[in-house]
Amino acid sequence: MATTSADPSHSKGAATRERILSQALRLAGVVGLAGLTIGELATQLGLSKSGLFAHFKSKENLQLMVLDAAAEHFAARVFRPALKAPRGEPRIHALFENWLRWTSSRELPGGCIFLAGAAEWDDQEGPVRDRLVEWFEKLNQSLARAASIAVEEGHFPKDLDTAQFAYDLHAIVLKYHLQARLLRSPDALSRAGDAYHRLLAATRV
Amino acid sequence: MATTSADPSHSKGAATRERILSQALRLAGVVGLAGLTIGELATQLGLSKSGLFAHFKSKENLQLMVLDAAAEHFAARVFRPALKAPRGEPRIHALFENWLRWTSSRELPGGCIFLAGAAEWDDQEGPVRDRLVEWFEKLNQSLARAASIAVEEGHFPKDLDTAQFAYDLHAIVLKYHLQARLLRSPDALSRAGDAYHRLLAATRV
Repeated sequence: MATTSADPSHSKGAATRERILSQALRLAGVVGLAGLTIGELATQLGLSKSGLFAHFKSKENLQLMVLDAAAEHFAARVFRPALKAPRGEPRIHALFENWLRWTSSRELPGGCIFLAGAAEWDDQEGPVRDRLVEWFEKLNQSLARAASIAVEEGHFPKDLDTAQFAYDLHAIVLKYHLQARLLRSPDALSRAGDAYHRLLAATRV
Repeated sequence: MATTSADPSHSKGAATRERILSQALRLAGVVGLAGLTIGELATQLGLSKSGLFAHFKSKENLQLMVLDAAAEHFAARVFRPALKAPRGEPRIHALFENWLRWTSSRELPGGCIFLAGAAEWDDQEGPVRDRLVEWFEKLNQSLARAASIAVEEGHFPKDLDTAQFAYDLHAIVLKYHLQARLLRSPDALSRAGDAYHRLLAATRV
């Protein structure tokens, strides 16, 4: 979405920044978040390294911005479109379908950068790890919130452990990501669907 | 386990090779399989780069050997000890417990190198990717085989989709790995246990 600005150089800067982040997102998917270098990114974009540094100050800052951009991308592709579905179980269904589609999307050639980041940072401290944890915790909360709306709608029982539902739903998607992207298993989608339907059958009122 | 050999230089070579692989396994856990370099490994071991090259010929070959060593480590810590448990459900229970313990083990400081490798290679072709796929497929088969033994023992129903059971069980462990290692969630273990007990309750005869 374009924003109007009284200062044309500001909006040009924002557009450049967006173009850099979009390319950084693709590159990080392939080489990992740790493998993301300002030099390689500059080459791919035909920009100077110093120009890129002016936008992002440091590699770490670039990594944080890429994570935030990926989270926004995820929200735009997975969560927000699901809000069009009726509250409760239909919305969870839409969310799950959008999520599987996103997971095997060609838009992100290298798979989920959050999972790549999780493997890279699960043993390192620092701001990138903290940001990864923050986004995964937000994901858990959003999934639990979707389940609690299904409780409110009377689709799921009042005593449902919504955090456990979030755990179980994410577990299915994590295995799907592995089966679909690394193993290229032809039954990845149907297995994910079976697991999902069993979870719902066990959860429903 | 020591093996006797008529040729002392051979057994010395084997011991060195084992020491290198053991260190490579630790290093790959931290920096990833792609980040594993013969130079860094040589420094850590106090060996020359050329000495290391003599053992492994190439970085790719080292990566393959590390994956095989990790798989052997996994079999020795997770699968083989579970064979002491009675056939069927008790053995699956032992396997699951060993697996969670291995997943959060301090022996492997950097988390599961198969998952690190999956994130790194899910978009790249080549022998390392092929080996990763091979090991994950073997894992799926071993889990399905454990379920089919439970069918033979009358613990699980005859019409069980054992490959789906393998999918569901691995899904739980993947989420556990994320919750325990990256998020350091205090309820990771109890959530994994709840998911496991629900899976078993839904599967049992």
